[in-house]
Formats: sequence, C-alpha cells, structure tokens
Amino acid sequence: MTLVVSRNPATGASRDLDVHDTSSSEVRALSKRASSIAAEFARRPLAWRASLLRAMADELERRAPSLVEVAMEETALPRPRLEGELRRTAFQFRFFSDVVLDGAFLQASIDHATDSAMGPLPDLRRVRVPIGPVAVFGSSNFPFAFSVPGGDSASALAAGCPIVIKAHPAHPATSLATFEALVSAANAAGAPEGLLGLVFGLEAGVALVQDPAISAIGFTGSVAAGRALWQLANARATPIPFFGELGSANPLVVTQSAANERASEIGAGIAGSMTLGVGQFCTKPGLLFVPAGNPGDEVVTSLAGVLRDLSGMTMLSEGIAAHFGEGTNAIAAVQGVSHLVGGALDGATQVVAQLFEVDTDVFNGPFAAALHEECFGPLAIVVRYRNVSDLRVALEGVQPALTFSVFSEDNDPDAPWLIELAQEKSGRVIANQFPTGVGVSWSMQHGGPWPSTTNSAATSVGAGSIDRWLRPVTYQALRAELLPTALRDDNPLGVPQRVDGVQS
Amino acid sequence: MTLVVSRNPATGASRDLDVHDTSSSEVRALSKRASSIAAEFARRPLAWRASLLRAMADELERRAPSLVEVAMEETALPRPRLEGELRRTAFQFRFFSDVVLDGAFLQASIDHATDSAMGPLPDLRRVRVPIGPVAVFGSSNFPFAFSVPGGDSASALAAGCPIVIKAHPAHPATSLATFEALVSAANAAGAPEGLLGLVFGLEAGVALVQDPAISAIGFTGSVAAGRALWQLANARATPIPFFGELGSANPLVVTQSAANERASEIGAGIAGSMTLGVGQFCTKPGLLFVPAGNPGDEVVTSLAGVLRDLSGMTMLSEGIAAHFGEGTNAIAAVQGVSHLVGGALDGATQVVAQLFEVDTDVFNGPFAAALHEECFGPLAIVVRYRNVSDLRVALEGVQPALTFSVFSEDNDPDAPWLIELAQEKSGRVIANQFPTGVGVSWSMQHGGPWPSTTNSAATSVGAGSIDRWLRPVTYQALRAELLPTALRDDNPLGVPQRVDGVQS
Repeated sequence: MTLVVSRNPATGASRDLDVHDTSSSEVRALSKRASSIAAEFARRPLAWRASLLRAMADELERRAPSLVEVAMEETALPRPRLEGELRRTAFQFRFFSDVVLDGAFLQASIDHATDSAMGPLPDLRRVRVPIGPVAVFGSSNFPFAFSVPGGDSASALAAGCPIVIKAHPAHPATSLATFEALVSAANAAGAPEGLLGLVFGLEAGVALVQDPAISAIGFTGSVAAGRALWQLANARATPIPFFGELGSANPLVVTQSAANERASEIGAGIAGSMTLGVGQFCTKPGLLFVPAGNPGDEVVTSLAGVLRDLSGMTMLSEGIAAHFGEGTNAIAAVQGVSHLVGGALDGATQVVAQLFEVDTDVFNGPFAAALHEECFGPLAIVVRYRNVSDLRVALEGVQPALTFSVFSEDNDPDAPWLIELAQEKSGRVIANQFPTGVGVSWSMQHGGPWPSTTNSAATSVGAGSIDRWLRPVTYQALRAELLPTALRDDNPLGVPQRVDGVQS
Repeated sequence: MTLVVSRNPATGASRDLDVHDTSSSEVRALSKRASSIAAEFARRPLAWRASLLRAMADELERRAPSLVEVAMEETALPRPRLEGELRRTAFQFRFFSDVVLDGAFLQASIDHATDSAMGPLPDLRRVRVPIGPVAVFGSSNFPFAFSVPGGDSASALAAGCPIVIKAHPAHPATSLATFEALVSAANAAGAPEGLLGLVFGLEAGVALVQDPAISAIGFTGSVAAGRALWQLANARATPIPFFGELGSANPLVVTQSAANERASEIGAGIAGSMTLGVGQFCTKPGLLFVPAGNPGDEVVTSLAGVLRDLSGMTMLSEGIAAHFGEGTNAIAAVQGVSHLVGGALDGATQVVAQLFEVDTDVFNGPFAAALHEECFGPLAIVVRYRNVSDLRVALEGVQPALTFSVFSEDNDPDAPWLIELAQEKSGRVIANQFPTGVGVSWSMQHGGPWPSTTNSAATSVGAGSIDRWLRPVTYQALRAELLPTALRDDNPLGVPQRVDGVQS
C-alpha cells in the first residue's frame, strides 16, 4: 500500500506519514458507517448539535500551536496567515452553531387544513431534513478554512449530515492533525461513531463520489478536477448533487473617475490583493480593467512597481507551481500581450509575481482563451480600454466569476450599469474594495454562475452554505406525536415557523 | 415544415393546427428575445409583477369555457376534472402573486460592517435575483396545471424570469389557447415583448435545452425523456440547472392495525385514487403493501371489486396507451405475479384498470425490476407481506418517490419507524390519506430523491417552487443608491429582512 507523503514546499524535504492511500473497500466501509448513523445523528436535538460545533471550535483553538506548525511545514504559508486562518476556522464552527440554534434554516412551515378556491386542503407541514452523508473535498489553498475543518464540513455537520472528507495531497499531515481534533471533540461530546471519516488518494476520491451511501458532495478546486468529479456524480445510477467551487478570474474595473482620483492607491491595493497568500485565493483579482492613457497608466505603474519590489514566493506544491508556470507561458504566448512584470521562475516551488497587459482588441479576439481563464497564483492581466463602450463590450465577454469589483467615484454615471453587469456576471459585487477577503456571515455569497461554481444557487461560505445539505419533506395529516418537533403547533424548539402563510 | 396536429384520443380524429414545428433558428430567436428583456423584467417593481400574475389568472378564468372545450377534445378528460384543473391553475397564479408580495422569497439579508473574532467585516448584503430565461417543458397529464400556464411557468414569472415553453404534443391546441391567454394578459399589463415564448416539436425541445440564452429548465415527464434532457443540459459548454419531475411509484402501506379496522374502506379508497384521471397522475399510488391473510385479503377484495366494476377508460394519447400496455405486459411477465384485475386492452387509447399481486419474495427478488418502476396509468401492484420485518425489508428496497402513504391506527407501534422510513424515501409523507391530490400551498413539497426528481432539494408545486429560479448575490460596501431596493436600510418595499443576523 502506498504511504501518504508530506512535503515541505519551501525546502523540498518530504516524510512518510503513518497512513496509506485509502483503498476502495475502506472508502466503502467509511461511507456505509456514515450512512448507518445518519438517522441517529439527524435525530439529536439542535442544542446538542450546536454544542458539538462549539466543542470542535474549542478543540481546534486548543491545538492551534501544533496545528499551525504542521501547516507551516506543508504549505510554506507564513505563521500570521495560518494563525488568522485557524481563528477564522474556529469562528466558522461557532457561527454555524448560531445558525443551528437560530433554526430558520429548517424553513418550518405549517398549513392547517382549510378550504380554498381550489377545494379543501389537508393539513400540510414542511421542514428541511438532512440530505444524508456528505463527501467533502478539501482545497489546496486553505489548509484549515476550506479543508478538513472547513466550511463544507462545518455546514454539513450543522445540517445534520455525517461527513467523509478527502484530504488534499498538498497537506496530508495538517489534514490528519485537524481531523484528530474534530474526532476528539466529537468523541468527548458523545457523537455517534462514524460521524467523521477521512480518506487519502486520488482513487479514494473517485470511489467516494461513486459510493452509493454518499448523498451529496462539496468540492473546492480546479475546473478540470471539479468538472470530472461532477460528471462522475451525474453518471451514478442514482445521481447526487455536486457543489463545486471551480475557477474564477474575478474581474476588477477601475473607472476613469476612480483612476482620476486614486490611481496609485488603487494600483498598490491591487498588488496586495493579487499576491495575498501567493495569489492562491479563489477570489484573487485576475482581470484588471484600466482606462487607456493617463491616469490609467499611473494605476499600472503603481501596481507594477509594488510587484517588482516583491521577492520570490513559495507556492503550495510543485504541482501548483508547475501549473502556474504553464498558465504564465500560455498567457505570454498570446500575440499582442505585453509582459510587464515577471521573469524566470526559480526552483521547483519558487515563483515571482507576473503582470501582463493587453488592449481590448486582443482581449476580445479569437486567440485570447488563455486570458479569460483563471491562472491560480500571483498573476493578473491588465486590460486597457479606450472608452466606456469599449469597456462594456470587453466586460460582456468575460466569464462569470465568484466576485466582480468596481472602483468608481460617487458621482460616476457609469456605476449603475457596471453594478448591474457585475451582478449578472458574479455572485458578489464589490464597490471600491478588493475581493480577496471572504467574511463568514449571514449575508455572504461565495459562489457564482458557471464556471466559477457548478451551481449558482449555492454558496460555500456563510449561513446559506447549509442549504446545500438539506432537502424539504412535507408531512400530510400526521398526528402531532409523529411530526418532527419543529412542526408541532406548540413549537417546543421555538424555531421560526410560517403558520398558514404568516412568518413568525 | 411539419404542421402541428391535434388529436382526439377518444375518437381518433385529428386536425392540423395553424402552426408548424418550431425550427432551431426560431427557438434561437425566441430565447434571445427572452434574454434581451430579462433584465428589464427583473427590474419591474414586485407589485407590478404580482399584478401581472393576477391578470393572467383573470384571463384564464375569463376564457375558461373555451379552454375547457379544447382540452376535452384533446385529452378525453371529463369536463368537471378540467374545470377543476383550470380553477387550480388560476388559483396558482394568484398564489404566486401572494408569494411575490410577501417578499420572503428574496431572502434579503443585511450585515452592517462590524468587527468580528475573525477580524473586520465589510458591509455585506445578500438578496436573490432571477436566474434568467427559463425553459418550461409541459406535461402530458395536466393540460393546464402542469403545462403552458402551469406551476413552472407561474413560479418562474414570479421569480422574475422570462419563459419559453415547450408544448406537450398530446395537447397542442390547448397549449396554443392557454398561451394566447397568458400573452393577452401580459400585453394588457404592458409586459416587455418576449416575456413569453412557445415552441412545438421534439427538435425544438432539444434546441431549447442547448440554447445559450436559456438559464434553467423545468420539466415534468418520464424518467427516460427527463434523464436524456438532463444529460443534454449537463453537456452544454455552460451547464445549467435542470429541474425534472420524473417517475414515482408512490408506495402506500396498509398496516395490520389499519386492515383490521378499515379494510374495505381503504381498498375502495385506493381504487379511486389509482384510477383518478385514468391513473395519469405522478402521485398515483402504484405499490400497495398489504398484510398477508385476513383482513388484508379484504383490502384486496374491496379494491379489486371496485376496479372490476369500472368500465374502459381513454388515455391521453396513443403513445401513452401503448406505453401503458408495454408496462402491463412487463409486470405480467414477472414469474410469481398474479394478475387480479385486467384483461385485453381495447382500441388504440382505450384501457381497463390493472391490478397485480405478488409476495415479498418475488418483489425483493432479482427479476422484479418491472415491479419497482412507475407504470403510468390505472395500474397498481399489491405486495403482500407476512409480518413487520418482512414489510421493512421490502420497503427498504423500494425506489424513492414523490409520496409515501401510511395507513395505520393511532395506537400502532409501527407508525414511528414507518414514518421515518417514508421520510427517507420520499418528499411527502402522508398519514391515512391518498396521495393523488397535490395542494398549492406554502407547505407543499412535490419532489423527492432520484428517480422521482433530478433534484431532491427542489419542489415543483407550492411556494418553494420559486426557489428553483433564483440565485443569491451579495453586494459588498455599495452606496445605498446602487443597492437593490430590497437591501436598503429604509426598506421601502417592506420585505422581510434579516438585519445583522436577526430576522425581521
């Protein structure tokens, strides 16, 4: 059996871990075990479920020093970033504890029997129930917040679903250590055994998507891998929902008015945002629309200046760095592209920031596919537009994205149509701020039309991300004792109920 | 060009209509036109959208006499049934008018900028926006309520989406007449031209699913057709959500306690439910679990007696009747099946009710696939179980369904596990009532796990059916003038808002 290997991308050192790639029969056993306790877990009181999530947050924080150490070794990300990410991860578990206690996610609705214009209606009561065991595919770029203890795991547990997690090969030791923290908290809380599972290896991932005991999938990764797994999920005898967060070029528009007022500030801000975490953010601004001439030139000069002053950076893995090199070369090969900042890549995982510039004729042209796709890493393409109609045509040609940022002054007459176009093209419309931060909150949307996700109605961050793991069931003419507690007239759980059409 | 033909299934008579099968370029033009006015329609005030839906209801009622006539000729359904269905259809438009004015469907949420344990959070506001033009595939079995003026159309318009409808070939004249009613109401209300489109023919349906201007699909029909179109939707360069209501065998369990008390009443009730509308209901109870021996025998005797007394019935089309014949033969061919009621089918569209009986050994056996699938029409299979554990094993083997009915007495100790299993296996759990009626209400769920639908989180009836046509967008740090009205602090629309986590 193939042992799982942990690699240090900064030094190239590697070590065998005390686990092996998970076999198909082991995947089968974990999925069946998850399925066997799904109903029991779903029946536990909401208050217990909320306390389990808080216990997981506590345990992650208790183990923070050692978790950050192991993640630093595997990701080459700096300590403050990883400490912040772990804080966010714990915060996210507590947030979902609040979401569970709030109870609105159940969408409880009671219609008492009545006569209507279409005839008599029986007693009908609807609530959302857990969808069943969820497979979670951890991401490369966030070893905590979008991996084993990430948002998919927290939201699925909050929904009442057991989880089986596929560890990302870029950080297996971090995956193991964070998994142990979750298991420890679950055991201490008396959770049913089988609530949490962890698997390693490409084949195990495929087996997981195909396992009949798995009811839904959460995935964060590339378009290619996501599309392949999504197709596997659709090809099952019983297809299941696949929620994939894929690729996003995240357009950012600097209007003439903003360039006139804040050229250098915006340029420097873009540089910070596009290199945050070595540009390994799904929300990295990758397509920058800047007016031609002055003061657009000043935006680019400021941006390029900051990028040139940055030293080399270490990417998460050799594979990711190689992919970044390929993406860089593909963009450089497009006729009419200027390579403003960049240069030779140095070593297996070491890279420097890359900046390209094109005009809209090239960007809108037939050979520009490489300019339209996400290139994961510290790279951006500046698209220089001549005037407003030129900008509009170029923007209508961009692929939908997770985010769409617009920098403009308050009196800018183009802001309304830009905001409307941004809404059509993305899941998050941002004014005068950079898109990289993704706050965990009630109102966050982290998802957009294809290819940024497989399902534009879903989000993988924020309260709404629990929606992915629920399905509604209506109970018709049931005696009170047989009803789910959330649907009883006396509402002992105190959850929000819509009663005869009126929301409480 | 092929003219569209309207057929009378009772007489076999046919007539050419004054329309032809829609060409691919005509589909393209209708979809593009829908797309071109999508943003304008979405911008109209909610109150206007609600009044449009009410005007459509009024217009359908104004034209009721002629609409019922044309539908009778094409479907052979009796006048009272069609009058009732049209009442329901108008009711549904008015119901969605209420849903629009209620505003909860927008899920407006406002988080003001704040400091959190994970750091500062910007101003974030989330609302659901229309997904874009929706293609609606009308059903065969409900010429009004699940066709051109059906739930998919009403809910998509309520969500703010233009629609292009594929007429079902079983009732093209009804499709035309109802479409004209909707267009007339839309024109009178000043709706943008292109809000409604209608296409005919198999190829037009395929072109519609593949059209880049279409953003989502609603479908009601068979597993085979639904799965094929769903795969087309997934194979697009830009895949889109496909909401298909497919096949459902709708299990119904009679417990020993219920058989003891109400054998004949239940048997007669099943007979009525399974032959309602010539058994052409997606919610027809098709799998009947009845205890072996007495008084289970009495349930079957009562049911069979009513069915034998029924005269021949006319199905909706020759194709549907032929398919019913094939399904009947496939079930009869299963070794160990008793054919209790039935006999030769008479004429191209004339059928008689069919009743089969098996024991659980046959039902659970390896050659019983035909017993597990929906057979569309007045047919049911009685599965006789020996005891509770025998029943449980058989039920665990049934395919998920739209509905799952349980008949039991109040003191029946098996009711709790039956209800729990019913919830796992369906979208609507029914106690001591028949599943055929599907009320339009806030709490209705008409959808269940595969193969009953392509998406168990969706419903095609009730307030929740609007959810299919919406996607969330978050606005970060936008000035008030640029925000959607539903997200303004002063809430001029008076819609429900969650503000800083607290629902108003």
